[in-house]
Amino acid sequence: MSILVVGSIAYDTVETPFRSVKDSPGGSALYFSMAASFFSAVNVVGVVGTDFDLQKIQFTRPCPISFDGLDVQEGKTFRWGGRYYEDPNQRDTLFTLLNVFEDFKPLIPAHYRKSKIVFLANIDPELQLQVLEQIEHPELVVLDTMNFWISSKRTALDKVIGHTQIIILNDQEIRQLTGTANLIAGGQKILEKGPQVVVIKKGEHGAIMMQKQSIFSAPAYPVNNVVDPTGAGDSFAGGFVGYLARQGVFDESEIRKAMIYGTVIASFNVEDFSFNRLVNLTEADLQARYEDLKRMMQF
Amino acid sequence: MSILVVGSIAYDTVETPFRSVKDSPGGSALYFSMAASFFSAVNVVGVVGTDFDLQKIQFTRPCPISFDGLDVQEGKTFRWGGRYYEDPNQRDTLFTLLNVFEDFKPLIPAHYRKSKIVFLANIDPELQLQVLEQIEHPELVVLDTMNFWISSKRTALDKVIGHTQIIILNDQEIRQLTGTANLIAGGQKILEKGPQVVVIKKGEHGAIMMQKQSIFSAPAYPVNNVVDPTGAGDSFAGGFVGYLARQGVFDESEIRKAMIYGTVIASFNVEDFSFNRLVNLTEADLQARYEDLKRMMQF
Repeated sequence: MSILVVGSIAYDTVETPFRSVKDSPGGSALYFSMAASFFSAVNVVGVVGTDFDLQKIQFTRPCPISFDGLDVQEGKTFRWGGRYYEDPNQRDTLFTLLNVFEDFKPLIPAHYRKSKIVFLANIDPELQLQVLEQIEHPELVVLDTMNFWISSKRTALDKVIGHTQIIILNDQEIRQLTGTANLIAGGQKILEKGPQVVVIKKGEHGAIMMQKQSIFSAPAYPVNNVVDPTGAGDSFAGGFVGYLARQGVFDESEIRKAMIYGTVIASFNVEDFSFNRLVNLTEADLQARYEDLKRMMQF
Repeated sequence: MSILVVGSIAYDTVETPFRSVKDSPGGSALYFSMAASFFSAVNVVGVVGTDFDLQKIQFTRPCPISFDGLDVQEGKTFRWGGRYYEDPNQRDTLFTLLNVFEDFKPLIPAHYRKSKIVFLANIDPELQLQVLEQIEHPELVVLDTMNFWISSKRTALDKVIGHTQIIILNDQEIRQLTGTANLIAGGQKILEKGPQVVVIKKGEHGAIMMQKQSIFSAPAYPVNNVVDPTGAGDSFAGGFVGYLARQGVFDESEIRKAMIYGTVIASFNVEDFSFNRLVNLTEADLQARYEDLKRMMQF
């Protein structure tokens, strides 16, 4: 099954204690797609400026990503700048220039409207609702969001959550959304709002998957050379949804495996700037870390 | 095999947003012993004042804990006061009154000097060295410490680490000890100093066990009613070392299971003040959560 993803496409400027990059391709939709394309075809809907050059992304593996839904607008592409520190859990946003993204109105091409799997990357929940209105009968809607929308667009966000099967949040977002310090209690609150599955991303502490009757806990893959954490969450989501799309089955057993594939892809993604590490990754690389994680969890 | 534990015995005063307790029994050695006694005999060496009343601890299960090594000194028992908040990961120390603990000189009774398993709970590393000098041929030395000793008694601490097989630290301590933000890289540094095993406690994010060639990651048991986190780390260590002592085998397979038993005991301990939840816990309670964790980690 193919995936429809709607989200941001950006040029990122990233500073780390070791090295920096300027205007490297990024954004939630691109990180997601690069990761998901290991498993499944991905159709991207987003907006870029006339300065965006898709050709500059060098793929050394076949990536079944379609950019038919890319809206090219006169002007500049969304730009984000951030700085990381010795402790990669610390991040400062240096600038956010929305540019053409400011007036983004997601228009889903006719041939994508029958999409069965939709990933709503982190954008304004009002736009996420507009996306859902254009999809005929989605079977699996997976939602991401962020602190900014939780505080500023709560009504629209709650509506999107009501149409969502799987919601992916980080630990801070779940606390903010539920007003509950305890992650498990917070997850249970969200399960009462509609989603059947809550995935809690905890960065270097791994991720938790909660359903009403069960919990699955995935450790982070131990990476001791984190170069650039940008896109870790989106590439996790890409591996997760991509695997489910390939299997075409969304039961608990597959969701658990999808958590591990998401973890594996995110672990590679942080080993280089942008999604450089993902463009030449092999199936064997993925499988090796999948098996490593299995061993790390056995007793 | 029995365990020798040397550490603090205290009266704790704890405030939480829900309820408070005054002068309830605590301290690293007591929390450890209560937890370890599910699996193995424990011999405690520590100091208390004449105000300490062992009889007040009501056991509803047989606890093979010997207090032959308890030094009762004229004066008051060590007292600690702390306050927790809505988010139980936040804690303020309100007071620390060392009292008789200030002049503690651990004297190991003759019949404990052949102990094969020693748990050095968090006390001054110079005292920990004095303990080790009195033990004839320990097979398994397990070490705990804290930020205060890492900064103030580094030379002595490094000596203790050199005699330690298993070191148990929390994430902040490992960062402080190694000057490394990345926990995995930090753990690897410590493995070069002597210990064969590093256990990293991460509170609600579980615990990691590292050896030179392998990593095991245990999630926290999902507790949504944390009443009092005091003693979580010591009860984890108690379950961990207690299980190993019962098995009498310290290989990786047993160490992984020990991590899970430590996790289980700590999860019960935080559900009530002091170690109230541990005094009437049953083997079946433990086993149920052990199996829950197994299910939480399977894919």
